[in-house]
Amino acid sequence: MTAQLLRVQNLTVSSDGYAAGEGMTLERPFGHADPAALMSWAGATASWPHRTDGGGSRGLDDHFTRDFTRNIGAEIMGRGKFGPQTGPWEDHEWLGWWGDEPPFHTPVIVLTHHERPSYTLGDTTFHFLDASPADALTRARHEAHGADVRLGGGATLIRSFLADDLVDTMHVAVAPVELGAGSRLWESPDELLDRFHCDVVPSPSGVTHHLFWRR
Amino acid sequence: MTAQLLRVQNLTVSSDGYAAGEGMTLERPFGHADPAALMSWAGATASWPHRTDGGGSRGLDDHFTRDFTRNIGAEIMGRGKFGPQTGPWEDHEWLGWWGDEPPFHTPVIVLTHHERPSYTLGDTTFHFLDASPADALTRARHEAHGADVRLGGGATLIRSFLADDLVDTMHVAVAPVELGAGSRLWESPDELLDRFHCDVVPSPSGVTHHLFWRR
Repeated sequence: MTAQLLRVQNLTVSSDGYAAGEGMTLERPFGHADPAALMSWAGATASWPHRTDGGGSRGLDDHFTRDFTRNIGAEIMGRGKFGPQTGPWEDHEWLGWWGDEPPFHTPVIVLTHHERPSYTLGDTTFHFLDASPADALTRARHEAHGADVRLGGGATLIRSFLADDLVDTMHVAVAPVELGAGSRLWESPDELLDRFHCDVVPSPSGVTHHLFWRR
Repeated sequence: MTAQLLRVQNLTVSSDGYAAGEGMTLERPFGHADPAALMSWAGATASWPHRTDGGGSRGLDDHFTRDFTRNIGAEIMGRGKFGPQTGPWEDHEWLGWWGDEPPFHTPVIVLTHHERPSYTLGDTTFHFLDASPADALTRARHEAHGADVRLGGGATLIRSFLADDLVDTMHVAVAPVELGAGSRLWESPDELLDRFHCDVVPSPSGVTHHLFWRR
């Protein structure tokens, strides 16, 4: 019970396995995909971190949004979850897509071949690291002070951690939309069944939650 | 988001709605019911509080056992969840069914017509209170210091709080066993649909989770 798990949480993919579309820009973090179509299941819940009105559902989907921060001490994300730029940083003034109060509230390791100085927004500190998945996880576990580490995505990042067999649990919501192209997590969740147990749980909201844990 | 909810969590009932059987004794807290048949879904999970081996499942059922303590600052339980005695206390040395390290880790309000002095075991403090459901909830909210309050059961206690419309959310696992008699929560979950939304979620373990929240 004291191990520091590496957990994927609330990652949403299309029915054909894409976590984001093609053509990511500053204005369209999900590329050609409509983020509302993917994420509305989460936005409807009482525990959605961006909710301000005090309403929202408290059923199955809410169990997943409220579990987002439980016992998480750090996050690892890919550069594409931080921003749309590629190559060397040209503007250190731009501080990511996540606003003045990012929803992470822990250290965040951004994996990138182009490091830059750390900085803090609200109670989230971003660190930029050029490292292998295993070395990034070692650093994140240190930052997490004994708590678990969230693997935030995108799909390419998660595939690299799966390839190195570093992921302990994974919650993926499959939304009833097709994207056809973009950043793909899988062709089918069956690809993971040799290494993971999986509970498949349809939600009244229309998404199907997939809950993986190590065999 | 700052309201202190009153939450029923991980209450397990038989397919015919009983949370415990008949004939509760010191040795048989569930009366004629087999506690393993009711609770095995929870005991198989990684987050079951009595687990010591580090194993267990991390799928759907584990989301419920690990949510047990999240943002809970106090519990209210009926006298039957504390012990089998009725009437005036005859033995203050007997400190309840929950051992030297009760799994609550918060103040616990035991509702009883027969008050006795408070005491602490581990980091759980038991208070004994002769009060209405509303007054007990006021006391528990005070003890919870801004966090939510868990309504622990049994079924009779929960029905009294439902009758006074004090329950905000309720998670009930319906197990695939029949009891025929005992302490009954409902004849059917449909009785609550006039006042609550309900997600009905079958689990691979065989129980069906019912998640209620206010309309």
